Amino acid sequence: MGTDSTALLTDHYELTMLEASLRSGAAHRRCVFEVFARRLPEGRRYGVVAGTGRLLDDLERFRFDGPVLDFLARNEIVDDRTLDWLAGYRFSGDIWGYAEGECYFPGSPLLIVEAPFGEAVLLETLVLSVLNHDSAVAAAASRMTYAAGDRPCIEMGSRRTHEDAAVSAARAAYIAGFSSTSNLEAGRRYGIPTTGTSAHAFTLVHDSERQAFQAQVESLGTGTTLLIDTYDVETAVRTAIEVAGPELGAVRIDSGDLVELAHQVRNQLDALGAAKTRIVVTSDLDEYQIAALAAAPVDAYGVGTQLVTGSGHPTAGLVYKLVARAASDDPDAPLIPVAKKSAEKATRGGRKYALRRRGPDGVATAEVISVGQPPEPPAEGDDRPLLVPLVKNGEIVGREPLAAARERHAASRAELPPTVHQMSKGEPAIPTLYMEGSKR
Amino acid sequence: MGTDSTALLTDHYELTMLEASLRSGAAHRRCVFEVFARRLPEGRRYGVVAGTGRLLDDLERFRFDGPVLDFLARNEIVDDRTLDWLAGYRFSGDIWGYAEGECYFPGSPLLIVEAPFGEAVLLETLVLSVLNHDSAVAAAASRMTYAAGDRPCIEMGSRRTHEDAAVSAARAAYIAGFSSTSNLEAGRRYGIPTTGTSAHAFTLVHDSERQAFQAQVESLGTGTTLLIDTYDVETAVRTAIEVAGPELGAVRIDSGDLVELAHQVRNQLDALGAAKTRIVVTSDLDEYQIAALAAAPVDAYGVGTQLVTGSGHPTAGLVYKLVARAASDDPDAPLIPVAKKSAEKATRGGRKYALRRRGPDGVATAEVISVGQPPEPPAEGDDRPLLVPLVKNGEIVGREPLAAARERHAASRAELPPTVHQMSKGEPAIPTLYMEGSKR
Repeated sequence: MGTDSTALLTDHYELTMLEASLRSGAAHRRCVFEVFARRLPEGRRYGVVAGTGRLLDDLERFRFDGPVLDFLARNEIVDDRTLDWLAGYRFSGDIWGYAEGECYFPGSPLLIVEAPFGEAVLLETLVLSVLNHDSAVAAAASRMTYAAGDRPCIEMGSRRTHEDAAVSAARAAYIAGFSSTSNLEAGRRYGIPTTGTSAHAFTLVHDSERQAFQAQVESLGTGTTLLIDTYDVETAVRTAIEVAGPELGAVRIDSGDLVELAHQVRNQLDALGAAKTRIVVTSDLDEYQIAALAAAPVDAYGVGTQLVTGSGHPTAGLVYKLVARAASDDPDAPLIPVAKKSAEKATRGGRKYALRRRGPDGVATAEVISVGQPPEPPAEGDDRPLLVPLVKNGEIVGREPLAAARERHAASRAELPPTVHQMSKGEPAIPTLYMEGSKR
Repeated sequence: MGTDSTALLTDHYELTMLEASLRSGAAHRRCVFEVFARRLPEGRRYGVVAGTGRLLDDLERFRFDGPVLDFLARNEIVDDRTLDWLAGYRFSGDIWGYAEGECYFPGSPLLIVEAPFGEAVLLETLVLSVLNHDSAVAAAASRMTYAAGDRPCIEMGSRRTHEDAAVSAARAAYIAGFSSTSNLEAGRRYGIPTTGTSAHAFTLVHDSERQAFQAQVESLGTGTTLLIDTYDVETAVRTAIEVAGPELGAVRIDSGDLVELAHQVRNQLDALGAAKTRIVVTSDLDEYQIAALAAAPVDAYGVGTQLVTGSGHPTAGLVYKLVARAASDDPDAPLIPVAKKSAEKATRGGRKYALRRRGPDGVATAEVISVGQPPEPPAEGDDRPLLVPLVKNGEIVGREPLAAARERHAASRAELPPTVHQMSKGEPAIPTLYMEGSKR
């Protein structure tokens, strides 16, 4: 479409606010914006930060090039002074954030953007789009991979979400412990392992199930996964082993009573000497279904719809709020906290820090948040700082390999108290404590 | 990222099925795939087709160029024969579909793809991603615009969904009757009107609400919309009219008891002589909230989260199923219906047609679906054919302006029986009738 800029993936009002603040002068006031969740989705015990790496890529392309300025001018969205300002726009501020994969709780300052108002306000929509989507998927994925234990989870939800969101969903799921994805673009772009063998259509297009299995095994080898529920499962298992031999890699069940079928199929495979042939199940699974299958002889879970739609919570509900600004137009003016006056939508003003407090056993006990600088040394020995630099003076400094986020998530989740893994609805796993900050 | 191809926005197994079917020869068998919904989301009375136009654009870019083939080869996803076949891939078949904006019901054949198996199977994931996402948003949007009556609905959900999905959501909402969007890329790409003025941050960055209002009015004119719930609503309304005069375009309320506040603000505006100043409300609205505000003095609704997440149903649940194939490898072999054997996932075989049956009063009475050719003349005088050609011999023939889809949706919705607009959960508005087709 003539540009790879991300600058228009934003709301109209970000630009009109820029224009009006350039006129009033407020565009140049130093500001602190903060991304946080007022609450977790109903009953969830923790959230998972995802999208940070994607956001940094998007920020690099957040610039107002020719086609973008053309559109804004043609539609008179902002005035000429603002167009000039935008033509030279480069984010010059600082961004800190929870590292990708980290768990979070209500009020956790997931991202802190410090920059002149005009620069920082422009980023609101894009920041929220990326973090709200990816974090929603990662939070659901984390519950699923925990419920699955050592059994791998395969992401296969592309068809149930927007085609570009699908690629990002695969990435978020991988961070939260999924082992692979069906999405090829996620493989190309992020190096995530991709998997897949065949669907019912493949069996149906052949004259018989046997012919289909033969074609697949000849093409993909005996290590492949054969889909056994197109016609009759018992017949299909017998045919599968006749065609592939007991070395068949796996069979896949995509419908029916999965617990019941898994047991039947396991028994049949064992009786046929195919004790190592694995069983993959893939029928509208969510974390509850996965947990319910824990005692069934299942070797892997393929998860689609419920993963990409956040298992009932397709958006993380994160907001991007102004929490502090320069007290005046003086460039040396100190920052003062600001907040909308509202019982229902309270915002705590000021630039924050955040620590994960842990007990002597290494188990997390609280999310400690305060305005100002963290006490040094930390008030309690095992406080783990949560904010890392992502952008310094406009330069991206927070890039890391995707594997780092994946490892971080596993470690962060392992640190949470065991109650976090109760499937039932409940309170956040640890309380959020707001403390008085020091004024160094 | 080196390519604008859409060919990898797909599942790994589409390509392994292609490879195995090239080996067995089934890749060349003429096939009919069909997109349909087994059921509507719980309690919904109709669905809305959206995404067709985007899909045609994506299809045009569905080709295996250098970077795509490189990825497939490097990761050994398919063998060399398949890579050669993909390098020359151009979809050569036919696609019919419900025109964009049309209402649909369980079993409606929303898209029919007729092509050799290898060509058609590759499209599954992309077709479903586009239609499932856009149709889910359009279905929610249609309920909202109906509930809003003559009052305009403004799409402002970008921040609560993936940044690219946001652009498509704005487009789907527009088809279903939204009047504008906050998303600038949707304005640039699709010509949808964009709107927006300011957020709480804009008020907070200034030294006072008055200063913020002054800056906004100086910049955007008295016709702008001032946000009045940052501090105290009553004070804000007074200040707003003092600053902008009674010609102020609108005020926006984004929190609190909207019914109560709308009445208070209307009374206050009227008392201040600002009888023409409109009231816009924007606080986590859905179709139920909009309906509940019908008697309140509200002039426009801004809708975000619930729109882009399909108001509880973020995916339309559409499937892409093989329903017929050539009886043998003979190029002249007739098509025979095929279907997976499953009580729970029944698929009706064969290439279908579909008609909207209407009574003498013009009101829709049934969705008539049959295999084969429609009777000619139609069995009943007011049967409206629903399938239109989208692709003929690989050439895209179904492009149309976005306005056509928007008008079609309004007309299609107006034709449904009044029960369709009950907010309560219920059955589909009209039954789906499967009839014997003629064998001409």
